[in-house]
Amino acid sequence: MKNTCDISPNACVDDTVKFGFGVRVYANAEIKGNCDIGDYSVIGYPTKNPTWAGRKVVIPEGSVIRSHTVIYEGSSFVSSLETGHHVVIREGTRAGENLRVGNYSDVEGDCVIGDFCRFHGYVHVGKGSKIGNFVWLYSLVTLTNDPLPPSNICVGVEIADGVVVCVNCMIMPGSKLGEGAFVSAGSQVQGVVPSGAVHHQGKILCGVSLLRSIEHKIDHPWMNHFKADYPESAWPQLDDLLKRIKSASATIKPK
Amino acid sequence: MKNTCDISPNACVDDTVKFGFGVRVYANAEIKGNCDIGDYSVIGYPTKNPTWAGRKVVIPEGSVIRSHTVIYEGSSFVSSLETGHHVVIREGTRAGENLRVGNYSDVEGDCVIGDFCRFHGYVHVGKGSKIGNFVWLYSLVTLTNDPLPPSNICVGVEIADGVVVCVNCMIMPGSKLGEGAFVSAGSQVQGVVPSGAVHHQGKILCGVSLLRSIEHKIDHPWMNHFKADYPESAWPQLDDLLKRIKSASATIKPK
Amino acid sequence: MKNTCDISPNACVDDTVKFGFGVRVYANAEIKGNCDIGDYSVIGYPTKNPTWAGRKVVIPEGSVIRSHTVIYEGSSFVSSLETGHHVVIREGTRAGENLRVGNYSDVEGDCVIGDFCRFHGYVHVGKGSKIGNFVWLYSLVTLTNDPLPPSNICVGVEIADGVVVCVNCMIMPGSKLGEGAFVSAGSQVQGVVPSGAVHHQGKILCGVSLLRSIEHKIDHPWMNHFKADYPESAWPQLDDLLKRIKSASATIKPK
Repeated sequence: MKNTCDISPNACVDDTVKFGFGVRVYANAEIKGNCDIGDYSVIGYPTKNPTWAGRKVVIPEGSVIRSHTVIYEGSSFVSSLETGHHVVIREGTRAGENLRVGNYSDVEGDCVIGDFCRFHGYVHVGKGSKIGNFVWLYSLVTLTNDPLPPSNICVGVEIADGVVVCVNCMIMPGSKLGEGAFVSAGSQVQGVVPSGAVHHQGKILCGVSLLRSIEHKIDHPWMNHFKADYPESAWPQLDDLLKRIKSASATIKPK
Repeated sequence: MKNTCDISPNACVDDTVKFGFGVRVYANAEIKGNCDIGDYSVIGYPTKNPTWAGRKVVIPEGSVIRSHTVIYEGSSFVSSLETGHHVVIREGTRAGENLRVGNYSDVEGDCVIGDFCRFHGYVHVGKGSKIGNFVWLYSLVTLTNDPLPPSNICVGVEIADGVVVCVNCMIMPGSKLGEGAFVSAGSQVQGVVPSGAVHHQGKILCGVSLLRSIEHKIDHPWMNHFKADYPESAWPQLDDLLKRIKSASATIKPK
Repeated sequence: MKNTCDISPNACVDDTVKFGFGVRVYANAEIKGNCDIGDYSVIGYPTKNPTWAGRKVVIPEGSVIRSHTVIYEGSSFVSSLETGHHVVIREGTRAGENLRVGNYSDVEGDCVIGDFCRFHGYVHVGKGSKIGNFVWLYSLVTLTNDPLPPSNICVGVEIADGVVVCVNCMIMPGSKLGEGAFVSAGSQVQGVVPSGAVHHQGKILCGVSLLRSIEHKIDHPWMNHFKADYPESAWPQLDDLLKRIKSASATIKPK
């Protein structure tokens, strides 16, 4: 479909890239081998932000970019990126290995995102967020950054490794979620959630090791039963993380 | 506009279909007569899900697909489908007559949806949901399916005929909403809502027949005053449903 | 890029307009000088609403329309409009100067919007909303209009000058937010919020002048520290508004 696309002669595109219909690739984009770039996507969209304008974006080997996705110039991804449909990733995003971003999610830029993170749909990652490895953000999760809106102050949230934020949560500016913390659906988080803690509707409820589904025979931390969804190379890291989260969980007193 | 589109020679497209600018139609799509397919839409998007890959999607006679919509292969719709802009409908969706899906809504696939359902904007229908006839899902309603995320367990919600879920509600995995139940704005539902009941912020409040707007002179169930918005052929079904919901409502004790 | 676009010969487009790749411009669109129209956008989309069908939409001088945006015919904007990606603005929207609408926001039409309003992402402005000048709507804010859904009654919300509605709020049908009101994150508003009042989770908390961030040395009303983000021509209006909001705030008793 390359002949229906607009690929800048200055873009650097591997011969094995598979293009959908009507893709636009701007000059600062580099697209590595075996990528699949969906219909009506835009890669390397120019920013007016002087820090990132004119800087490259590299789409790593084997990435899958689904249709109607927009990725700005001036971002980096360590290995295979996967996006849903209608995703926006802005300038100055630095993401680790194998980030997956669901439909309609919006990564607002100047963010640091670790390895193997998964964001579901309508996730809004505010500018300046810092996200660790193996983090899960479910649908409609919003990471905010303005302490008294509107202002010109940007205080991003910090989310440590292995955190799970369930559907429809707001994480307020400057909040810090410790390793393996679990935030229940519809919660609003302000301040610190300790490592290994369950946050439920504004309160620390218990340690994450107490979360279980008897019916479905699974329990928390999720690395217990979900390791196989990651590449084997990531398992030692997940094992270490699991140990640390269990220890942290044991220090949280249930209410 | 057909000459600006990319229509697979294997797709089956009626001569009366009206195409917008730059539409893409994949091989497994069949588009019936008098459909209107909006600009930059994608019909028959291939899935990697082995159950549905390579299976047809049929867009029924007289459907209106608004711009930037993506419909996967392997779904079916009984009669005229209507989508807003930027909609995604994934593989394995089996929908009844005249489904209407609003802007930015995301039907995640492997769902069963009855006749004459209406979803507003940003509605997220999780994989495995079962939705009856005449169901209303308002903006930002999320139907979830993972009982202890992340896991590989998928427990879809079940929503019976005539249910109304107001704006910004979360329906938790495996929840069951009975016929004509009404879920008030911003509620989180876990478990069972009886037929004819009003659910408000986690509690059963009263029967739906007690809901009324004195100012606007309308009351519930909504079939009382809204029948004319459906085709006449659906009226007998709506009358039956109304009777059943009224009976069920009478059994709910107000709190 | 004009040669990759579909521009109706009946549209009125200034020679200085910069088009992205594959833009569609319908017959009823007028696009003034120095506009930048992003890739895969649609300007002048025809409506079936008989009140607005066939009526012009004028995109004012210097507007920036980002990719995948859809603007219907029959709307008007006083001066430079700025949209994010994947925005929808429907027919019959009458907006003032320099409206900014963020990614995935949906303005449903038949709305009146004042000068210098800013909507963040996923904002849903229901049909019939009336919004004053200098209003801020943050991500996932929903302005509703149906008092007992589903019905054919449309009771839009009214939002006065200088109001701030924080992330994830629902404003219920017919609600009225007075000048400079501040609605905290995740609130559901029903009814009237007095001028200068802080609404928090269904209650009036205090006057807005009591809101401050000691850490970041800013306080409310926001015109105190944020005036410079508006053009100088708007400063006298902002000064007047600030005075009125301060007076109103002084009349609200803290709880």
